[in-house]
Amino acid sequence: MCIVETKIFKINEPLNLESGRELKEVEVAYETYGELNEAGDNAILLLHALTGDAHAAEYHEGDAKPGWWNDMVGSGKAFDTDKYFVICSNMLGGCKGTTGPGSINPETGKEYGLTFPVITIEDVVKVQKKLIDFLGVKKLTVAGGSMGGMQALEWALTYNEMVSHVIVIASTPRLSAQSIAFNAVGRNAILSDPNFNNGNYYHGEKPEKGLAIARMVGHITYLCEEAMHEKFARRFQDKDTPNFNFDIDFEVESYLAHQGQTFVDRFDANSYLYITKAVDYFDIARKYGSLEKAFENTDARYLVISFSSDWLFPSEQSKELVGALMRNKKDVSYCEIQSPCGHDAFLLEYETQTKIIRSFLWGVNV
Amino acid sequence: MCIVETKIFKINEPLNLESGRELKEVEVAYETYGELNEAGDNAILLLHALTGDAHAAEYHEGDAKPGWWNDMVGSGKAFDTDKYFVICSNMLGGCKGTTGPGSINPETGKEYGLTFPVITIEDVVKVQKKLIDFLGVKKLTVAGGSMGGMQALEWALTYNEMVSHVIVIASTPRLSAQSIAFNAVGRNAILSDPNFNNGNYYHGEKPEKGLAIARMVGHITYLCEEAMHEKFARRFQDKDTPNFNFDIDFEVESYLAHQGQTFVDRFDANSYLYITKAVDYFDIARKYGSLEKAFENTDARYLVISFSSDWLFPSEQSKELVGALMRNKKDVSYCEIQSPCGHDAFLLEYETQTKIIRSFLWGVNV
Repeated sequence: MCIVETKIFKINEPLNLESGRELKEVEVAYETYGELNEAGDNAILLLHALTGDAHAAEYHEGDAKPGWWNDMVGSGKAFDTDKYFVICSNMLGGCKGTTGPGSINPETGKEYGLTFPVITIEDVVKVQKKLIDFLGVKKLTVAGGSMGGMQALEWALTYNEMVSHVIVIASTPRLSAQSIAFNAVGRNAILSDPNFNNGNYYHGEKPEKGLAIARMVGHITYLCEEAMHEKFARRFQDKDTPNFNFDIDFEVESYLAHQGQTFVDRFDANSYLYITKAVDYFDIARKYGSLEKAFENTDARYLVISFSSDWLFPSEQSKELVGALMRNKKDVSYCEIQSPCGHDAFLLEYETQTKIIRSFLWGVNV
Repeated sequence: MCIVETKIFKINEPLNLESGRELKEVEVAYETYGELNEAGDNAILLLHALTGDAHAAEYHEGDAKPGWWNDMVGSGKAFDTDKYFVICSNMLGGCKGTTGPGSINPETGKEYGLTFPVITIEDVVKVQKKLIDFLGVKKLTVAGGSMGGMQALEWALTYNEMVSHVIVIASTPRLSAQSIAFNAVGRNAILSDPNFNNGNYYHGEKPEKGLAIARMVGHITYLCEEAMHEKFARRFQDKDTPNFNFDIDFEVESYLAHQGQTFVDRFDANSYLYITKAVDYFDIARKYGSLEKAFENTDARYLVISFSSDWLFPSEQSKELVGALMRNKKDVSYCEIQSPCGHDAFLLEYETQTKIIRSFLWGVNV
């Protein structure tokens, strides 16, 4: 068992944001696994999903559970630390060490709350670029699932000269109206919670009920009907007959309540607002006029993976991305993995992903 | 333009419920269109969906809009009032004239609120049966979309001797874990609203925020990704650029907010709790051991219609029902209508449905 620590990198200049606003000070929480080579060209930047953090792999001191993508990062794994220098940082706007709405605003000495500027995936990637430069990386692979895949695409287009390989998993070139709708419901639940208090809740009761509801909605989209049926079917919780009241009745209700409750203990409601908003705004084609034009000047090799049962970012959305790359005659591999796990498959189906990713990064015979 | 009035039928005996509890007094709001023949065998009972009411067709005095299924009910329409006596009643537990949690409990003189007994689809149909008997109907067709289709199935199995034709549209033989999950989120939003006050809100502020969130979640499931994309794509509301704040940004957010807001003006939060619970409990096979056994002793003719883009009750669930009927060698017709309208298609795709339903009820050449 390897012990790893989250480190902090401080950006020593103001950060200009896509909104036109700026942040005077930004700190970035990050972890690294493996060693950077002398040429600085063996780096892999892992990009986390909505509620992830910098702790992608190995163990924190005293923890029983490893980082969120530990099955994919390490010696002999998909992101092989024998060969690669693997980096993961918490995103801008998050609540796991990187500057976000729960951080102290140096100008007021108080938490930002809703005075924190609204951020975009472009801003998030800009912060990561500063970390990568600080670490001495010259050339890198970018890889992520879900929102992490959006960041990977943003990296590839904005910092083309640095990116050799792009791995986009269970992601999309733009958020659909349906996904925006789900995020809007989640934000509404938070904003409607009387404890939300316009975002100023850091010294009192937190908007836990609203955040739990947002998380429940999210979890329905991370699974799929098939996965839910496999897991819960119509079984009652700890009994065989209906309650005939409004307490938890079915196993699936108990599961959602548990997911909601554990989430409020580990996540900040304001960060949830800011991050879902950044995701809503994501549309890789927007600045370029079309998806096809967006990928005209990219030189990286692409691997796109989708999952058959992912209905949040269904395979069609990945295929649209792959089509735009192919029409630009770019080097792209695409794989749809048959899986009953829904969107969450990118965190679960590591064996198949490992084979595909190692083959993509290392060549066919690995 | 025909004017119709909602009438009230009062059940003059206690109603025993599936939960073991009883209701001392039940009133049923209903409307009828067309005339019952002497034999009493030309009736069609329409069964409404989650938030419907007895006002299925024609106009109330002064109203600019007709009833919810007006496109399907009338002279020359799917449910042809030249030939049929069409009936629609508000369901038990509702808030549109039939006894529900917002009604006055005769024993206390106050609204029931959460003291109202939890009801099931079986209870809902039992109340309809009493209305049908009161109206002198001897033989009938039962027809409904979504939750209305569940009631049609319950009718067919419980009152087999009375039912000649069963029309089940955009429905399911049982609620899936995913659908239970969506309902649970909606109920959670209502129960979490500080104005909910344990269901006693009839004389103060209502849990409008919670009910609006429940409705928003519902609306996402009534449309489909394709329909949402067609309607809204990623267009911003009344502008071309992002807000960079948490106000309404995208058209789809504005649509959902509007749906939520208009809903709280016309629906009771307690009724929403009771009705979604009745739907959660719905599993037509439960009392019989299996779907196949459930349909062993049915004599009616069945028409099952599903819509290609309905992901709330997808075609697979209708096909399961059709399969069970076929294995029992029952008379069943099935049609999957290609439609981009999602679950809501049963309220929108009336032209195709009209042809299919008239053909089913009247014979091939109509």
